[in-house]
Amino acid sequence: MTAESDPDFPQVETAEETLDEDNRLKADFVRLVLDAVERGDTEEAYRLAQPLHAADIADLFELTKREDRADLAIALGDLLSADVLAEINDWVRDDIVDALPAAQIADLAEQMETDDAVAMIEDLEEEEQQAVLAELDPEDRAVIEDALSYPEESAGRIMQRELVAVPEHITVGQLIDYLRDNQDLTTEFWEIFVVDPAHRPIGTCQLSWILRTPRNISISDVMKREQTLIPVDMDQEEVALRFQKYALISAAVVDDAGRLVGVITADDVVHIVQEEAGEDILRLSGAGEGDINEPIADSYKARVRWLIANLGTAMVASFIIAQFGAAIETMVALAILMPIVASIGGNAGTQTLAVTVRALATNQLTQSNTVRSIWREIRVALLIGATVAVIAGLGAGVIFSNWTLAGVIGAAILFNITIAGLSGVVIPVVLDRLDQDPAVSSSIFVTMITDSMGFLIFLGLAVFAGLAG
Amino acid sequence: MTAESDPDFPQVETAEETLDEDNRLKADFVRLVLDAVERGDTEEAYRLAQPLHAADIADLFELTKREDRADLAIALGDLLSADVLAEINDWVRDDIVDALPAAQIADLAEQMETDDAVAMIEDLEEEEQQAVLAELDPEDRAVIEDALSYPEESAGRIMQRELVAVPEHITVGQLIDYLRDNQDLTTEFWEIFVVDPAHRPIGTCQLSWILRTPRNISISDVMKREQTLIPVDMDQEEVALRFQKYALISAAVVDDAGRLVGVITADDVVHIVQEEAGEDILRLSGAGEGDINEPIADSYKARVRWLIANLGTAMVASFIIAQFGAAIETMVALAILMPIVASIGGNAGTQTLAVTVRALATNQLTQSNTVRSIWREIRVALLIGATVAVIAGLGAGVIFSNWTLAGVIGAAILFNITIAGLSGVVIPVVLDRLDQDPAVSSSIFVTMITDSMGFLIFLGLAVFAGLAG
Repeated sequence: MTAESDPDFPQVETAEETLDEDNRLKADFVRLVLDAVERGDTEEAYRLAQPLHAADIADLFELTKREDRADLAIALGDLLSADVLAEINDWVRDDIVDALPAAQIADLAEQMETDDAVAMIEDLEEEEQQAVLAELDPEDRAVIEDALSYPEESAGRIMQRELVAVPEHITVGQLIDYLRDNQDLTTEFWEIFVVDPAHRPIGTCQLSWILRTPRNISISDVMKREQTLIPVDMDQEEVALRFQKYALISAAVVDDAGRLVGVITADDVVHIVQEEAGEDILRLSGAGEGDINEPIADSYKARVRWLIANLGTAMVASFIIAQFGAAIETMVALAILMPIVASIGGNAGTQTLAVTVRALATNQLTQSNTVRSIWREIRVALLIGATVAVIAGLGAGVIFSNWTLAGVIGAAILFNITIAGLSGVVIPVVLDRLDQDPAVSSSIFVTMITDSMGFLIFLGLAVFAGLAG
Repeated sequence: MTAESDPDFPQVETAEETLDEDNRLKADFVRLVLDAVERGDTEEAYRLAQPLHAADIADLFELTKREDRADLAIALGDLLSADVLAEINDWVRDDIVDALPAAQIADLAEQMETDDAVAMIEDLEEEEQQAVLAELDPEDRAVIEDALSYPEESAGRIMQRELVAVPEHITVGQLIDYLRDNQDLTTEFWEIFVVDPAHRPIGTCQLSWILRTPRNISISDVMKREQTLIPVDMDQEEVALRFQKYALISAAVVDDAGRLVGVITADDVVHIVQEEAGEDILRLSGAGEGDINEPIADSYKARVRWLIANLGTAMVASFIIAQFGAAIETMVALAILMPIVASIGGNAGTQTLAVTVRALATNQLTQSNTVRSIWREIRVALLIGATVAVIAGLGAGVIFSNWTLAGVIGAAILFNITIAGLSGVVIPVVLDRLDQDPAVSSSIFVTMITDSMGFLIFLGLAVFAGLAG
């Protein structure tokens, strides 16, 4: 008898059988769970999911069809823990949370760290949000209401309130005794903050330094006075850049008066960096939030807006072509070749744009090196333009046996790639100076320029060279 | 007398005067330092840079023109510390390190943590690398040679060797005494690893748990047995996904035999996530490594290769147009409108592509939801296609007073956007299944399809509808 043929034999026991080599849930395993849910065998579904890590249960929900998620939630019961909800994709969590009564959401929120509870509650409808807040302990409610008072994606939303702060006059021994004796302190912390009587941070102390120091030494002799303090209203993208620049594991968050109000840790920042860096690629291509779990209506709205703008720029290009209608009628080869000039220019512009947007997002491109970067991109563009122009010119010359046409397409490509390089760096830099997100609208402008200029130069040169009237 | 007019008055003292609101070095400050370097006033340059954080000195080098970096390095002398080199952009570091003698590089490497020293040495020319290794202490050399034996961008390259590992039978008190008494242990660690006699990790212990526990408790009662172990040859992108999935602050790295050989911490992972997520956007647009500090020759090579491939796909599209030469001669409006169909299709394809590449990179799109995602993209594409088709059709109908032409362009746009959505999800998924990086080559294929199909459908339909022969 083989394991597979015996229904009582535990078929999925270890991580190796549930996860593939990339640490993702295997399709077979997911199907096994969902089949059990579908045939109403909730016990089997529960048994299968029980050994999973919270992050994998979260993935299980994400991999389930939207309409089946409620059934899965019922089958898994208490396995749908606060940890699972903290790990789950925003859109999927909204689906699940919307189906739960306010009291249960409040219950889950109380088991979470503040930042996770806030992430869950902030996306609820106003009315539902109020109902959940009403169900919370007064103390938890105050904390979450305070967090919700800060702007979305600010430090105040993502920080944890649970932290350890001590005055500077105590010794290492006193600190250790304090930590051992106070059972209601958090157990998850990576640094101790040393504060003055007004609760303003004056230094920070890695736990490893405390463990390596004799009991009689004063904390003020162990702590590092140089700290990176995060203002509570700082945008999370800026927070992530600070963590990256100074290689931080955790950092104190302070309010307007400089008082310590929370802590942000690197594990949260990893998530933010992933999100923010991913957003740039989606914005550059006009895909909005661009999550595969996003409702179709939202994807539609974000993308169609972009394509309508794109239709507008394409019409500008068409208008330019229309001015050369007579030339095209005389020489149809112009219509055949003109998309090449526009396409190459568009792609060259996108390359420069991607490099520039990344450099701006990572604070690498500042006022000090803007002129140098523009000059750099022009030189790269001239080199690339010359190469591609020669290849395209030779190709067109041979195919059409017309060396004037070859010269025209070569010159047009060189010119358009140079324009593309220039606009690919100047447009995002200007948008950045105007405090606009360069990832959002740069590519519309760049594409419009490379399309329009591509057609204009190519067709204009053709007429000028006497190829067509 | 104002501060600005007195050359002896210290003009730059605090962070506020050197950094702008985004925490970047102010252009004025950078110019002040570089002017001092240029006029040979190394003392002034040193004085200005001295109060800066290592990460800001690193930025100062990045913001300096390539040819002036050696002079800046000489002026700053010992301010160009191991910490500065650890923070600096790879390309810029190569420039600086190439100018230093092997003995000095070895000196700096010995002050760095292993992962930073490896990052500096791995980029050197083979010959220079050997010279530096020869200058190192035998112990440091062995460690770095070992690290270099692992593949680039693997866990073995980015891990630190400095860690604290203890056997499971000791108590919290014994552990603290051990940490206090052994002066040569590292002072930078965030977790204690508990190992068996073969040095295999059996559990991990956050320092906060140790500090909260009485001395007489055994470590094995405090530690968490559930751990995320990183194989030493795992790719750094995969490492970053594990950190993100399980919200880790640090994780043990193990060799083939399961022995503990190093540790990776979240501050390094923040850097990797930033790099990897940024790489996707650059690859999708064919910009190679795409760093603004990259030598021009490298940028040229990476980008021109892509544009030449793009020239090939554009020629395929031109070939298709050439088949309809007669139709275009009959009705020049076709030449005017055809770029709209291709351009809209290309942009719609890029949107889907960006979403799919992100979902693949973050392990959100797996075998379990591939079919669902394809179906989702088709539905989004049909909705978007219908909207844009109606707008474009109405526009063309009004402008050209030709409602057959309006119908043709509308139908072509709807069809091409649908094809774009389908190929934007299917192509990267197939490349991913074939173990190819979907970010690298997807967009060439998608653009080729949307360009060619755009022209083919539009011109083909026009002929079919009897608009032109």
